[in-house]
Amino acid sequence: MKNHVFNFGGGKADGDGTMKEILGGKGAGLAEMSKAGVPVPPGFTISTEVCTIFFENGNKVPEEINQQCLKALEKLEKQIGKKLGDPKNPLLVSVRSGAKFSMPGMMNTILNLGLNDVTTEGLAALSGNPRFAYDSYRRFIQMFGEVALNIDMEKFDHIFDAQKKKAKTKLDTALTAKDLQAIIVEYKKLVKKETKKEFPQDAYDQLAMARDAVFRSWWNPKASYYRKMEKIPDEIGTAANVQAMVFGNMGDTCATGVGFTRNPLSGEKEFWGEFLINAQGEDVVAGIRTPEPLADLEKLMPAAYEQLHKITESLERHYRDMQDFEFTIEDGTLYMLQTRNGKRTGPAAVRVAVDLCHEGLIDKKEAVMRVAPSQLDQLLHPVFDTASLKKLGELAAGISASPGAAVGRVAFSADDAVVMAAGGPVILVRKETTPDDIHGMDVAKGILTAVGGKSSHAAVVARGMGRPCIVGAGSIQIDEHGKKFTTGGKVVKSGDWISIDGTTGKVYLGQAVTNEPDPNSSYFGTLMKWADEFRGKFGVRANADIPRDAKAARLFGAEGIGLCRTEHMFFAEDRIPYVQAMILARDEKNRRKALAKLLPMQRADFAGLFKAMDGFPVIIRTLDPPLHEFLPKREDLMVDLAKFPHATAKDKKAMSEKYRMPVGELKKQLPELLHRVEELHEFNPMLGHRGCRLGITYPEITEMQARAIFEAAAQVAKKGIKVMPEVMIPLVGSEKELENQKLIVQRVAEEVLAKAGLKKLHYMIGTMIEIPRAALTADEIARQAEFFSFGTNDLTQTTMGLSRDDYTKFSGHYENIKVFKADPFASIDQGGVGKIIELAIKLGRQTRPDLEIGICGEHGGDPSSVEFCYRVGMNYVSCSPYRVPIARLAAAQAAISDKTEANRTA
Amino acid sequence: MKNHVFNFGGGKADGDGTMKEILGGKGAGLAEMSKAGVPVPPGFTISTEVCTIFFENGNKVPEEINQQCLKALEKLEKQIGKKLGDPKNPLLVSVRSGAKFSMPGMMNTILNLGLNDVTTEGLAALSGNPRFAYDSYRRFIQMFGEVALNIDMEKFDHIFDAQKKKAKTKLDTALTAKDLQAIIVEYKKLVKKETKKEFPQDAYDQLAMARDAVFRSWWNPKASYYRKMEKIPDEIGTAANVQAMVFGNMGDTCATGVGFTRNPLSGEKEFWGEFLINAQGEDVVAGIRTPEPLADLEKLMPAAYEQLHKITESLERHYRDMQDFEFTIEDGTLYMLQTRNGKRTGPAAVRVAVDLCHEGLIDKKEAVMRVAPSQLDQLLHPVFDTASLKKLGELAAGISASPGAAVGRVAFSADDAVVMAAGGPVILVRKETTPDDIHGMDVAKGILTAVGGKSSHAAVVARGMGRPCIVGAGSIQIDEHGKKFTTGGKVVKSGDWISIDGTTGKVYLGQAVTNEPDPNSSYFGTLMKWADEFRGKFGVRANADIPRDAKAARLFGAEGIGLCRTEHMFFAEDRIPYVQAMILARDEKNRRKALAKLLPMQRADFAGLFKAMDGFPVIIRTLDPPLHEFLPKREDLMVDLAKFPHATAKDKKAMSEKYRMPVGELKKQLPELLHRVEELHEFNPMLGHRGCRLGITYPEITEMQARAIFEAAAQVAKKGIKVMPEVMIPLVGSEKELENQKLIVQRVAEEVLAKAGLKKLHYMIGTMIEIPRAALTADEIARQAEFFSFGTNDLTQTTMGLSRDDYTKFSGHYENIKVFKADPFASIDQGGVGKIIELAIKLGRQTRPDLEIGICGEHGGDPSSVEFCYRVGMNYVSCSPYRVPIARLAAAQAAISDKTEANRTA
Repeated sequence: MKNHVFNFGGGKADGDGTMKEILGGKGAGLAEMSKAGVPVPPGFTISTEVCTIFFENGNKVPEEINQQCLKALEKLEKQIGKKLGDPKNPLLVSVRSGAKFSMPGMMNTILNLGLNDVTTEGLAALSGNPRFAYDSYRRFIQMFGEVALNIDMEKFDHIFDAQKKKAKTKLDTALTAKDLQAIIVEYKKLVKKETKKEFPQDAYDQLAMARDAVFRSWWNPKASYYRKMEKIPDEIGTAANVQAMVFGNMGDTCATGVGFTRNPLSGEKEFWGEFLINAQGEDVVAGIRTPEPLADLEKLMPAAYEQLHKITESLERHYRDMQDFEFTIEDGTLYMLQTRNGKRTGPAAVRVAVDLCHEGLIDKKEAVMRVAPSQLDQLLHPVFDTASLKKLGELAAGISASPGAAVGRVAFSADDAVVMAAGGPVILVRKETTPDDIHGMDVAKGILTAVGGKSSHAAVVARGMGRPCIVGAGSIQIDEHGKKFTTGGKVVKSGDWISIDGTTGKVYLGQAVTNEPDPNSSYFGTLMKWADEFRGKFGVRANADIPRDAKAARLFGAEGIGLCRTEHMFFAEDRIPYVQAMILARDEKNRRKALAKLLPMQRADFAGLFKAMDGFPVIIRTLDPPLHEFLPKREDLMVDLAKFPHATAKDKKAMSEKYRMPVGELKKQLPELLHRVEELHEFNPMLGHRGCRLGITYPEITEMQARAIFEAAAQVAKKGIKVMPEVMIPLVGSEKELENQKLIVQRVAEEVLAKAGLKKLHYMIGTMIEIPRAALTADEIARQAEFFSFGTNDLTQTTMGLSRDDYTKFSGHYENIKVFKADPFASIDQGGVGKIIELAIKLGRQTRPDLEIGICGEHGGDPSSVEFCYRVGMNYVSCSPYRVPIARLAAAQAAISDKTEANRTA
Repeated sequence: MKNHVFNFGGGKADGDGTMKEILGGKGAGLAEMSKAGVPVPPGFTISTEVCTIFFENGNKVPEEINQQCLKALEKLEKQIGKKLGDPKNPLLVSVRSGAKFSMPGMMNTILNLGLNDVTTEGLAALSGNPRFAYDSYRRFIQMFGEVALNIDMEKFDHIFDAQKKKAKTKLDTALTAKDLQAIIVEYKKLVKKETKKEFPQDAYDQLAMARDAVFRSWWNPKASYYRKMEKIPDEIGTAANVQAMVFGNMGDTCATGVGFTRNPLSGEKEFWGEFLINAQGEDVVAGIRTPEPLADLEKLMPAAYEQLHKITESLERHYRDMQDFEFTIEDGTLYMLQTRNGKRTGPAAVRVAVDLCHEGLIDKKEAVMRVAPSQLDQLLHPVFDTASLKKLGELAAGISASPGAAVGRVAFSADDAVVMAAGGPVILVRKETTPDDIHGMDVAKGILTAVGGKSSHAAVVARGMGRPCIVGAGSIQIDEHGKKFTTGGKVVKSGDWISIDGTTGKVYLGQAVTNEPDPNSSYFGTLMKWADEFRGKFGVRANADIPRDAKAARLFGAEGIGLCRTEHMFFAEDRIPYVQAMILARDEKNRRKALAKLLPMQRADFAGLFKAMDGFPVIIRTLDPPLHEFLPKREDLMVDLAKFPHATAKDKKAMSEKYRMPVGELKKQLPELLHRVEELHEFNPMLGHRGCRLGITYPEITEMQARAIFEAAAQVAKKGIKVMPEVMIPLVGSEKELENQKLIVQRVAEEVLAKAGLKKLHYMIGTMIEIPRAALTADEIARQAEFFSFGTNDLTQTTMGLSRDDYTKFSGHYENIKVFKADPFASIDQGGVGKIIELAIKLGRQTRPDLEIGICGEHGGDPSSVEFCYRVGMNYVSCSPYRVPIARLAAAQAAISDKTEANRTA
């Protein structure tokens, strides 16, 4: 039988730090630390493979492996000189989960295992502290009851609170040993009632049950949700770590705490963390008591502090990364409970990477690889406009737990937050958060809690998510039932607007104005510079429709515009009447009349883009959406027409405004308008009369747009600005379609440029690849196209036969059974859509080896999609301006990971 | 300079019968006949290449080629001993189009060219028949005016009719030479007025202009339409044939006629055709005079008849096919004007092919290749139920011109027919048809004309189209303006129902009942037997949802059911309430309740199919359409709800019936229903919550359907009938989806079959391939699928990003610029969709070499698509029952054309 159980402690270990797959992150860390002489409490790790075996074996650990566990326990008992269940000198252990990837708080932990009616007395005698022993026992019953016996935690809380009431105290610490004994009696009764069995007194039974409960917790709903969110595979399972308990709660010579070797918010090099005297570890992270900053430990326990500082510094050097550690001091003796690479905010990730490189611990390449591209999002968050803050009332202050500014309406529960988020931004306000709140945190723009510290659940999770977060805002009195909070005499109700600044910890009443972030901070700038060095020729452009966005894009480092959606300009208030006139025109003559009004407006837009992108290419797409999108909704018209015979004067006035027709004309024009809307109505607009299909039926539209583009280009070029127009024809499915539109654009371009004396101005004509047929016939299409741009939004919809808008109806089911690896509308479906993209690139370059190829779908800003685009040989990605730095970093990482440059052209 | 002009006549020719590409069908035929010693009037052919050069050269024939023409003309003049423009002995010629493929009546012809003021007098003197000369000249001016000078024909008719009125006659033949001279004067005035030039008197000018007009007529709208319909390429162009005129209208020793070596309606071996004494060829086909049957010629001109019979019989042996010929007898001398393989009805095609094989002229293989699969459609047309005809009044009788029975509403113009056809079947009723009516004939179920014979335009075109047609129903008085016709005192108005029997020539008032055709006639049966011999293992199945269709399918030779759409059963009046209850159910329990009601109904349906298909496989597809299709329309509900506050009692009653809810409940239930309908509303239903996506969200639906299938299978199998169920999961895009549904079906199947003691009953589970992603991941999907069936309707829509329902909005534009080779919803788009099909087959067979692969989209009955399916290695096609014989024949032809059997498996 293969060995599945690995002992550690006492300066040696069966495993080591490289064995994360088998031992999990925590287990591997403990083995590594043991080997490095770090004082960890001894114990053993039951491997992740046992978790898999457990599930395959009908949720049971096979007897052979159980025997290995018992052997390891024996070894541990010898090491520490205590025995499990020993009435006199009982060994107490913790049983914790620990997967390959960190999933904080998502799975189960049981502490103080080994206590029963007898050993508790032994512990009381041994520690000379009966209250501690009873408190430990009641905690154990409660945790074990909840985790291993599936008893509702509230039922324990109910008993506990009743006893506090009886004892007339509000503080847990005020309960006496007797009170706690009474609680234990009630707890055991509860267990009997709920499980029909006595609370297990055999410590070996307890251990087996706890181990199994840890394995089972792999499939906790919150753990599953977390894995989905963090893209952690379901198959890998968790290890179970059994470790001798050490106690931070045996009196005032004891303490427990957590810390980071650097500030995980800012990345600054400082010894950062917090601790509690006379407490167990979970008290620090649970957010029940507000802990003290780590710096204060130096005064209270200088020796232990010094040792902690030294050990953690050497751990950082050992792991070459910022460490997140847990420690306990039992009667003045330091134990390291855990160390791991610390989670950090985006700004901290950037600073730590740059600093570590400057400190010589890692090189530039590794620094670039150290920051997850999605973390940059946090550096690109808006900050509050100072002036606007002054106009708002300052409501409260708390601990800044995750930086950035957020504005939204208050929601008092995760469920409310989800509902309200559909209507606009939400700030989730909770007394404290628990892993059960995760879906609400996910949708919230920011998080505010009344209790807890920098390591509380709210703080840890918000940082991971990059959400601005303030914790421990103690002045806030939350009435969760009444859905309101009170602070300084002010009452804030559900739905009221507040603004929170996760960087300063301040809360404001009302909506503050936010300012754009400065993406050129020195650490960020350094990292991006390094990233660009590795990125090489692979370009990053931005999708921008208006000059303002184009300017922002340049600021974020975009090297051109990959997609300008001309129709976005059509929806403007001053233009929509002409657009509608064009659509309602019954013949070409009247259509041209309306188009003539739009021409100067489009020309001005394009001129603005060309100016902003001096020297960089600008891809302008011709009209794409179906024409009915510019007209009133069919069902609105039908309903208004049905109501018309009985409409009041007021109703009619409203209709008149809505449809832009005089009240007196409604009776005649409403049915006419409906008639035209009916003519344009489509069963599947996504697959309908749009894209180049419009330009083919109404060549005068393409003509007008081409004229606007090249007249703008000529205008700007004459001012000495370098203009690089690329005209993109959308929704092409065959060479013939592109040829048809290309001829129109070419004719207009040549006419306009000749007239302007700019015959040599270089421009390109290309196409979107967003229909499978275009990909399948890319060799033919490339005969006409000078560039391809993958429109992966539509290509995903057509390739998967899946409407993005309609997918939401059943996406939940699809995520549950994991039909796709990730949301195909967020991350390119490489197994399906990716294949057709690769085919199109191959065929396109067959015909035209220097074909410029990029992507302009929303996937262009998704790191894994950027990596894909790089790998398959595209020349650039294009994404929203705020995601440009993310794409730059992702591209650099792709380039570093790429072993060869063979698949890159141009 | 390459030679582009080819002389023929006098027992020799520059070209020959193999040169159709260059000489066109007519020119090649004339050359071939000349060489074979057939007495054709001499002349020369200007090649199709000149047509292409003409268009490339700015609609001009280059001077070099013009010189070749003049040289050929000189040769012709020598041969026949007359000179063009000679005042005494003028050569008259015809100038006719003639492309590689026959396009009867679609392009221009000019006769009597060479006549002018002077030569007409010469002709009068030479023939001793001034009336004939003037009639020829006025005909020539009219034809030339219309064709070469673009003068409206009606303007000539107006002059002609005015002269008839003046002469107080209704017959053309009653006009005197003087009358005709007066007409010529007026005609020339008209030409002067319209063209600002005199009518050209120079015969050489006339010839050049006529030649160019023939080339230009290649792009006549009707010619373009015909080519589109018949899939004739636009690039090939037409030749121009210049041929000495011979005259059938020089008195009663002259005649002209057309004929077939076999009956083109039935295929019977008889000398079939018609002629007119003292007439020009166009009089026969124009339908102005009703000609006599060819048999009568024997009595009138026995020698010429005998010669004609002999020559045409030898032509048939020479070409090894039924010939369609034209002849003229000038003063008792026979000239053959044309011969070609004759167009024929479907039944005739079958009989001629079988007879020719029996006669030893062709072998079985060639016989099978001789019948276009689409022609079989005509053998599968319904016939009238005799009893039902008795109840209808017999309105009129005419000449049976194209067989088959048709029922429809009367339309009096092609445009009316097009409009009315959208609302139901139409019979086009015209005095006579012209090529301008072709779009109306295309949409009509049948055609009825008042004048004309078996070779009239209506008859020829209708046979080609396979439309039932009656011509020359002389009792019918048509008032086209008043949109009615009168016959025997009865008035039939536009929109009235009539029934016509193209086989008997009888017209009935009202709607007759039609009976299914007998596809097992002896000729048909023989041909299909031969076809099946060549078809080999390649299967043909039918799409059938109900036992009745399944029985019809067997009769037509289907070897199984390729697609049973279970949802078609859901729309039945007795089921839709349960279907709606299932959809409206808010939880699984209530959904199961409604499903339980549907189970026995579905079981009975499936049992019927299994019985009908004894020993053949039956593919049943699980529920496919989005659920909202089973509920009332969203906009109907919105409008009714808007109207509700002011609805009358009558309105409410109507709503109550429409929505199946009590009047008193409307106020409450209407908004609730709308709410649910809104919930289910989709932006793009084609890409929405349907197919396997339903089965995944509502596994109980799949479960019920699987239960119905296997309970039915068990029931039928126990009666000793061989049952081969194949369960097909629709809209699969990934292996996971199929696996999910497969597990449900397997579980139910095993449970039901075990219970029935039929554990060994063989069944299969497979999937539709109708989404590009399924094709791209076919290797993965084949791990789960035992068979693939290409759903080419949806696969075409998704691959092309083109909604079939919405394509109609711009398909006209797309056909005009030829974006696709053919309608992609009728014929598989081999250049795009075909590629992804081939990929899917390759990937699927990689994983599972014995994968059963077929097609069940509507393309399965399209001959060119069948050929494609065969070629890419499918195992079968499935199509509508009535197209099964077409598919069998198409498959046989594919097998014969296929050089190797290498790509065939299983």
